[in-house]
Amino acid sequence: MRKKVDYEMMVAFHGHSCPGLAMGYRMTLAAMDWLASHRAEDEELVAITENNSCGVDALQFISGCTFGKGNLVFKDYGKQAYTLYSRRDGRGVRVVLDRNAIPDAVRKDRDAYIDWLLQVDEKEIISLQEVQIEAPDKARILASVVCDECGEAVMETRIRKRGGRNLCIPCSEKLAS
Amino acid sequence: MRKKVDYEMMVAFHGHSCPGLAMGYRMTLAAMDWLASHRAEDEELVAITENNSCGVDALQFISGCTFGKGNLVFKDYGKQAYTLYSRRDGRGVRVVLDRNAIPDAVRKDRDAYIDWLLQVDEKEIISLQEVQIEAPDKARILASVVCDECGEAVMETRIRKRGGRNLCIPCSEKLAS
Repeated sequence: MRKKVDYEMMVAFHGHSCPGLAMGYRMTLAAMDWLASHRAEDEELVAITENNSCGVDALQFISGCTFGKGNLVFKDYGKQAYTLYSRRDGRGVRVVLDRNAIPDAVRKDRDAYIDWLLQVDEKEIISLQEVQIEAPDKARILASVVCDECGEAVMETRIRKRGGRNLCIPCSEKLAS
Repeated sequence: MRKKVDYEMMVAFHGHSCPGLAMGYRMTLAAMDWLASHRAEDEELVAITENNSCGVDALQFISGCTFGKGNLVFKDYGKQAYTLYSRRDGRGVRVVLDRNAIPDAVRKDRDAYIDWLLQVDEKEIISLQEVQIEAPDKARILASVVCDECGEAVMETRIRKRGGRNLCIPCSEKLAS
Protein backbone atom coordinates (compact mmCIF):
# COMPACT_ATOMS: atom_id res chain seq x y z
CA MET A 1 0.00 0.00 0.00
CA ARG A 2 1.54 3.26 -1.16
CA LYS A 3 1.37 5.96 1.47
CA LYS A 4 0.52 9.43 0.20
CA VAL A 5 3.37 11.78 1.00
CA ASP A 6 3.39 15.51 0.42
CA TYR A 7 6.71 15.70 -1.40
CA GLU A 8 6.84 19.48 -1.30
CA MET A 9 6.26 19.49 2.46
CA MET A 10 9.06 16.98 2.81
CA VAL A 11 11.37 19.23 0.78
CA ALA A 12 10.32 22.18 2.95
CA PHE A 13 11.21 20.20 6.06
CA HIS A 14 14.60 19.24 4.66
CA GLY A 15 15.23 22.77 3.41
CA HIS A 16 16.10 21.95 -0.19
CA SER A 17 15.46 19.41 -2.93
CA CYS A 18 18.36 17.10 -3.71
CA PRO A 19 19.17 13.61 -5.05
CA GLY A 20 19.89 12.32 -1.55
CA LEU A 21 16.42 13.29 -0.34
CA ALA A 22 14.86 11.65 -3.41
CA MET A 23 16.82 8.46 -2.64
CA GLY A 24 15.58 8.48 0.95
CA TYR A 25 12.05 9.01 -0.34
CA ARG A 26 12.17 5.99 -2.64
CA MET A 27 13.87 3.80 -0.02
CA THR A 28 11.44 4.72 2.75
CA LEU A 29 8.34 4.21 0.60
CA ALA A 30 9.68 0.87 -0.62
CA ALA A 31 10.26 -0.31 2.95
CA MET A 32 6.89 1.02 4.14
CA ASP A 33 5.15 -0.73 1.25
CA TRP A 34 6.92 -3.91 2.25
CA LEU A 35 5.72 -3.54 5.81
CA ALA A 36 2.32 -2.37 4.56
CA SER A 37 2.51 -0.04 7.45
CA HIS A 38 1.20 3.39 8.21
CA ARG A 39 3.06 6.34 9.61
CA ALA A 40 3.92 5.67 13.24
CA GLU A 41 1.69 7.73 15.49
CA ASP A 42 3.95 6.94 18.34
CA GLU A 43 6.47 4.15 18.40
CA GLU A 44 4.97 1.32 16.37
CA LEU A 45 7.75 1.68 13.80
CA VAL A 46 11.46 1.86 14.47
CA ALA A 47 13.97 2.91 11.83
CA ILE A 48 17.64 2.04 11.85
CA THR A 49 19.66 4.20 9.50
CA GLU A 50 23.19 3.25 8.45
CA ASN A 51 24.08 6.82 7.41
CA ASN A 52 23.29 10.38 8.44
CA SER A 53 22.92 11.99 5.04
CA CYS A 54 20.06 13.90 3.40
CA GLY A 55 17.80 10.92 2.77
CA VAL A 56 17.34 10.39 6.49
CA ASP A 57 15.13 13.49 6.53
CA ALA A 58 12.81 11.68 4.10
CA LEU A 59 12.97 8.66 6.39
CA GLN A 60 12.00 10.83 9.38
CA PHE A 61 9.28 12.70 7.52
CA ILE A 62 7.62 9.70 5.92
CA SER A 63 8.03 6.95 8.50
CA GLY A 64 7.46 9.09 11.58
CA CYS A 65 10.63 7.63 13.05
CA THR A 66 12.28 10.81 14.25
CA PHE A 67 15.33 11.82 16.23
CA GLY A 68 13.12 13.42 18.87
CA LYS A 69 10.77 10.48 19.28
CA GLY A 70 13.58 8.06 19.99
CA ASN A 71 12.54 5.56 17.31
CA LEU A 72 15.33 6.53 14.93
CA VAL A 73 18.49 4.53 15.59
CA PHE A 74 21.74 5.67 13.99
CA LYS A 75 24.41 3.13 13.09
CA ASP A 76 27.33 5.02 11.64
CA TYR A 77 28.22 2.51 8.90
CA GLY A 78 28.27 4.92 5.95
CA LYS A 79 25.90 2.72 3.94
CA GLN A 80 22.88 3.75 1.88
CA ALA A 81 20.63 1.43 3.87
CA TYR A 82 17.74 1.64 6.31
CA THR A 83 15.95 -1.02 8.32
CA LEU A 84 12.31 -0.49 9.20
CA TYR A 85 10.94 -2.59 12.03
CA SER A 86 7.33 -2.88 13.06
CA ARG A 87 6.83 -3.33 16.80
CA ARG A 88 3.28 -4.48 16.13
CA ASP A 89 4.18 -7.68 14.32
CA GLY A 90 7.94 -7.95 14.88
CA ARG A 91 8.72 -7.84 11.16
CA GLY A 92 11.72 -5.98 9.84
CA VAL A 93 12.93 -5.09 6.37
CA ARG A 94 16.29 -3.71 5.27
CA VAL A 95 16.26 -1.53 2.19
CA VAL A 96 19.39 -0.76 0.19
CA LEU A 97 19.80 1.65 -2.69
CA ASP A 98 22.30 0.57 -5.32
CA ARG A 99 24.10 3.67 -6.58
CA ASN A 100 25.86 1.62 -9.23
CA ALA A 101 22.50 1.07 -10.90
CA ILE A 102 22.27 4.79 -11.57
CA PRO A 103 23.59 5.63 -15.05
CA ASP A 104 26.40 8.19 -15.00
CA ALA A 105 24.57 10.22 -17.62
CA VAL A 106 21.61 11.03 -15.38
CA ARG A 107 23.85 12.38 -12.64
CA LYS A 108 25.10 15.27 -14.73
CA ASP A 109 22.04 17.48 -14.34
CA ARG A 110 20.88 17.79 -10.75
CA ASP A 111 17.19 18.41 -11.47
CA ALA A 112 17.04 15.66 -14.09
CA TYR A 113 18.81 13.36 -11.62
CA ILE A 114 16.14 14.04 -8.99
CA ASP A 115 13.36 13.44 -11.53
CA TRP A 116 15.01 10.20 -12.63
CA LEU A 117 15.25 8.98 -9.03
CA LEU A 118 11.59 9.75 -8.42
CA GLN A 119 10.40 7.96 -11.56
CA VAL A 120 12.69 4.98 -12.04
CA ASP A 121 11.21 1.53 -11.50
CA GLU A 122 11.82 0.56 -7.88
CA LYS A 123 13.35 -2.78 -8.84
CA GLU A 124 16.14 -1.07 -10.77
CA ILE A 125 17.69 0.73 -7.80
CA ILE A 126 16.25 -0.76 -4.62
CA SER A 127 16.59 -4.11 -2.94
CA LEU A 128 14.58 -5.26 0.04
CA GLN A 129 15.39 -8.06 2.42
CA GLU A 130 13.49 -9.31 5.44
CA VAL A 131 15.64 -9.24 8.58
CA GLN A 132 15.28 -10.81 11.99
CA ILE A 133 16.30 -8.35 14.67
CA GLU A 134 15.76 -7.85 18.36
CA ALA A 135 13.13 -5.21 19.14
CA PRO A 136 15.08 -2.00 19.81
CA ASP A 137 14.67 -0.46 23.27
CA LYS A 138 11.86 2.03 23.71
CA ALA A 139 12.58 5.61 24.67
CA ARG A 140 12.27 6.14 28.42
CA ILE A 141 11.41 9.15 30.51
CA LEU A 142 13.83 9.52 33.41
CA ALA A 143 14.01 11.71 36.49
CA SER A 144 16.10 14.86 36.61
CA VAL A 145 18.87 15.70 39.05
CA VAL A 146 20.38 19.16 39.53
CA CYS A 147 24.08 19.56 38.78
CA ASP A 148 25.82 20.75 41.95
CA GLU A 149 28.17 22.94 39.90
CA CYS A 150 26.06 24.77 37.31
CA GLY A 151 22.64 24.28 38.86
CA GLU A 152 21.06 23.00 35.66
CA ALA A 153 18.72 20.00 35.57
CA VAL A 154 20.21 16.80 34.14
CA MET A 155 18.68 13.45 33.20
CA GLU A 156 19.73 11.17 36.07
CA THR A 157 21.58 8.66 33.87
CA ARG A 158 23.87 11.46 32.62
CA ILE A 159 24.99 12.57 36.10
CA ARG A 160 28.69 11.98 36.85
CA LYS A 161 29.65 11.58 40.52
CA ARG A 162 32.81 13.42 41.58
CA GLY A 163 33.84 13.85 45.23
CA GLY A 164 30.32 13.02 46.32
CA ARG A 165 28.83 15.76 44.13
CA ASN A 166 26.34 15.31 41.30
CA LEU A 167 27.78 16.85 38.15
CA CYS A 168 26.60 17.20 34.58
CA ILE A 169 29.00 15.92 31.91
CA PRO A 170 30.36 19.37 30.85
CA CYS A 171 30.99 20.43 34.48
CA SER A 172 32.55 17.05 35.27
CA GLU A 173 34.91 17.43 32.30
CA LYS A 174 35.73 21.05 33.13
CA LEU A 175 36.61 20.19 36.76
CA ALA A 176 38.72 17.22 35.65
CA SER A 177 40.88 19.29 33.32
CA MET B 1 11.40 38.62 14.77
CA ARG B 2 8.90 35.85 15.45
CA LYS B 3 8.94 33.21 12.73
CA LYS B 4 5.55 31.87 11.69
CA VAL B 5 5.40 28.16 12.37
CA ASP B 6 2.58 25.84 11.42
CA TYR B 7 2.16 24.21 14.81
CA GLU B 8 -0.19 21.53 13.51
CA MET B 9 2.27 20.57 10.76
CA MET B 10 4.98 20.32 13.40
CA VAL B 11 2.76 18.04 15.49
CA ALA B 12 2.06 15.95 12.38
CA PHE B 13 5.79 15.63 11.78
CA HIS B 14 6.41 14.55 15.36
CA GLY B 15 3.42 12.23 15.33
CA HIS B 16 1.68 13.49 18.45
CA SER B 17 1.21 16.59 20.58
CA CYS B 18 3.02 16.53 23.94
CA PRO B 19 4.56 18.83 26.56
CA GLY B 20 8.08 17.99 25.35
CA LEU B 21 7.29 19.16 21.83
CA ALA B 22 5.76 22.37 23.21
CA MET B 23 8.93 22.95 25.24
CA GLY B 24 11.08 22.50 22.14
CA TYR B 25 8.81 24.89 20.26
CA ARG B 26 9.19 27.65 22.85
CA MET B 27 12.94 27.09 23.20
CA THR B 28 13.58 27.07 19.46
CA LEU B 29 11.50 30.18 18.79
CA ALA B 30 13.20 32.01 21.66
CA ALA B 31 16.65 31.15 20.28
CA MET B 32 15.64 32.03 16.71
CA ASP B 33 14.25 35.36 17.88
CA TRP B 34 17.54 35.99 19.62
CA LEU B 35 19.46 35.25 16.46
CA ALA B 36 16.82 37.13 14.43
CA SER B 37 17.38 34.43 11.94
CA HIS B 38 15.28 32.69 9.35
CA ARG B 39 14.88 29.01 8.78
CA ALA B 40 18.13 27.60 7.40
CA GLU B 41 17.72 26.85 3.72
CA ASP B 42 20.93 24.94 3.79
CA GLU B 43 23.49 25.16 6.50
CA GLU B 44 23.45 28.74 7.71
CA LEU B 45 22.23 27.62 11.10
CA VAL B 46 23.66 24.85 13.23
CA ALA B 47 21.87 23.44 16.26
CA ILE B 48 23.52 21.64 19.13
CA THR B 49 21.06 19.71 21.26
CA GLU B 50 21.98 18.42 24.70
CA ASN B 51 19.18 15.83 24.72
CA ASN B 52 17.35 13.55 22.30
CA SER B 53 13.81 13.91 23.55
CA CYS B 54 10.59 15.05 21.88
CA GLY B 55 11.42 18.75 21.74
CA VAL B 56 14.24 18.08 19.29
CA ASP B 57 11.62 17.43 16.62
CA ALA B 58 10.41 21.01 17.14
CA LEU B 59 14.03 22.12 16.88
CA GLN B 60 14.43 20.24 13.59
CA PHE B 61 11.11 21.39 12.16
CA ILE B 62 11.45 25.07 13.05
CA SER B 63 15.18 25.75 12.71
CA GLY B 64 15.80 23.59 9.65
CA CYS B 65 18.70 21.98 11.50
CA THR B 66 17.93 18.34 10.79
CA PHE B 67 19.56 14.99 11.36
CA GLY B 68 19.75 14.42 7.60
CA LYS B 69 21.26 17.78 6.74
CA GLY B 70 24.15 17.34 9.15
CA ASN B 71 23.58 20.64 10.94
CA LEU B 72 22.09 19.02 14.03
CA VAL B 73 24.78 18.09 16.55
CA PHE B 74 23.87 15.77 19.41
CA LYS B 75 25.66 16.07 22.75
CA ASP B 76 24.26 13.41 25.02
CA TYR B 77 24.24 15.50 28.23
CA GLY B 78 20.62 14.89 29.25
CA LYS B 79 19.95 18.63 29.60
CA GLN B 80 16.95 20.60 28.37
CA ALA B 81 19.19 22.93 26.38
CA TYR B 82 19.93 23.80 22.76
CA THR B 83 22.54 26.04 21.20
CA LEU B 84 21.75 27.73 17.92
CA TYR B 85 24.70 29.02 15.95
CA SER B 86 24.58 31.21 12.88
CA ARG B 87 27.34 30.53 10.36
CA ARG B 88 26.56 33.84 8.71
CA ASP B 89 27.62 36.05 11.58
CA GLY B 90 29.31 33.60 13.96
CA ARG B 91 26.86 34.31 16.78
CA GLY B 92 25.60 31.58 19.04
CA VAL B 93 22.94 31.43 21.73
CA ARG B 94 22.25 28.72 24.28
CA VAL B 95 18.67 28.35 25.38
CA VAL B 96 17.67 26.51 28.55
CA LEU B 97 14.21 25.63 29.77
CA ASP B 98 13.80 25.66 33.53
CA ARG B 99 11.41 22.86 34.48
CA ASN B 100 11.40 24.05 38.09
CA ALA B 101 9.61 27.20 36.95
CA ILE B 102 6.66 25.08 35.87
CA PRO B 103 4.04 24.89 38.66
CA ASP B 104 3.24 21.31 39.72
CA ALA B 105 -0.47 22.04 39.35
CA VAL B 106 -0.29 22.62 35.58
CA ARG B 107 1.44 19.30 34.97
CA LYS B 108 -1.56 17.28 36.14
CA ASP B 109 -3.62 17.65 32.97
CA ARG B 110 -1.64 16.94 29.81
CA ASP B 111 -3.62 19.15 27.45
CA ALA B 112 -3.71 22.02 29.94
CA TYR B 113 0.03 21.56 30.46
CA ILE B 114 0.66 21.89 26.72
CA ASP B 115 -1.55 25.01 26.53
CA TRP B 116 0.26 26.51 29.52
CA LEU B 117 3.66 25.89 27.90
CA LEU B 118 2.52 27.54 24.68
CA GLN B 119 1.13 30.63 26.41
CA VAL B 120 3.41 31.32 29.36
CA ASP B 121 5.60 34.41 29.22
CA GLU B 122 8.96 33.39 27.74
CA LYS B 123 10.90 34.98 30.60
CA GLU B 124 9.24 32.70 33.14
CA ILE B 125 10.60 29.44 31.77
CA ILE B 126 13.39 30.25 29.33
CA SER B 127 16.85 31.68 29.71
CA LEU B 128 19.11 32.70 26.85
CA GLN B 129 22.84 33.24 26.95
CA GLU B 130 25.22 34.24 24.19
CA VAL B 131 27.98 31.68 23.73
CA GLN B 132 31.29 31.77 21.92
CA ILE B 133 31.88 28.49 20.11
CA GLU B 134 33.97 27.21 17.27
CA ALA B 135 32.04 26.88 14.01
CA PRO B 136 30.98 23.22 13.83
CA ASP B 137 32.28 21.24 10.88
CA LYS B 138 30.16 21.24 7.74
CA ALA B 139 28.71 18.02 6.41
CA ARG B 140 30.92 16.53 3.71
CA ILE B 141 30.21 14.34 0.73
CA LEU B 142 32.70 11.50 0.51
CA ALA B 143 33.50 8.83 -2.04
CA SER B 144 32.15 5.30 -1.76
CA VAL B 145 34.14 2.07 -1.63
CA VAL B 146 32.67 -1.40 -2.09
CA CYS B 147 32.96 -3.81 0.84
CA ASP B 148 34.93 -6.87 -0.31
CA GLU B 149 32.76 -9.14 1.82
CA CYS B 150 29.12 -8.10 1.30
CA GLY B 151 29.53 -6.09 -1.89
CA GLU B 152 27.65 -3.07 -0.56
CA ALA B 153 28.85 0.50 -1.08
CA VAL B 154 30.36 2.19 1.97
CA MET B 155 31.44 5.77 2.67
CA GLU B 156 35.21 5.60 2.44
CA THR B 157 35.86 6.87 5.98
CA ARG B 158 33.81 3.95 7.36
CA ILE B 159 35.88 1.25 5.61
CA ARG B 160 37.87 -1.01 7.96
CA LYS B 161 40.98 -2.67 6.51
CA ARG B 162 41.44 -6.33 7.44
CA GLY B 163 44.03 -8.58 5.75
CA GLY B 164 44.30 -6.12 2.88
CA ARG B 165 40.58 -6.23 2.23
CA ASN B 166 38.14 -3.32 2.37
CA LEU B 167 35.36 -4.18 4.79
CA CYS B 168 32.28 -2.39 6.06
CA ILE B 169 31.92 -2.15 9.83
CA PRO B 170 29.35 -4.98 10.23
CA CYS B 171 31.40 -7.38 8.04
CA SER B 172 34.60 -6.40 9.85
CA GLU B 173 32.97 -7.14 13.21
CA LYS B 174 31.45 -10.39 11.99
CA LEU B 175 34.78 -11.66 10.69
CA ALA B 176 36.55 -10.64 13.91
CA SER B 177 34.17 -12.56 16.16
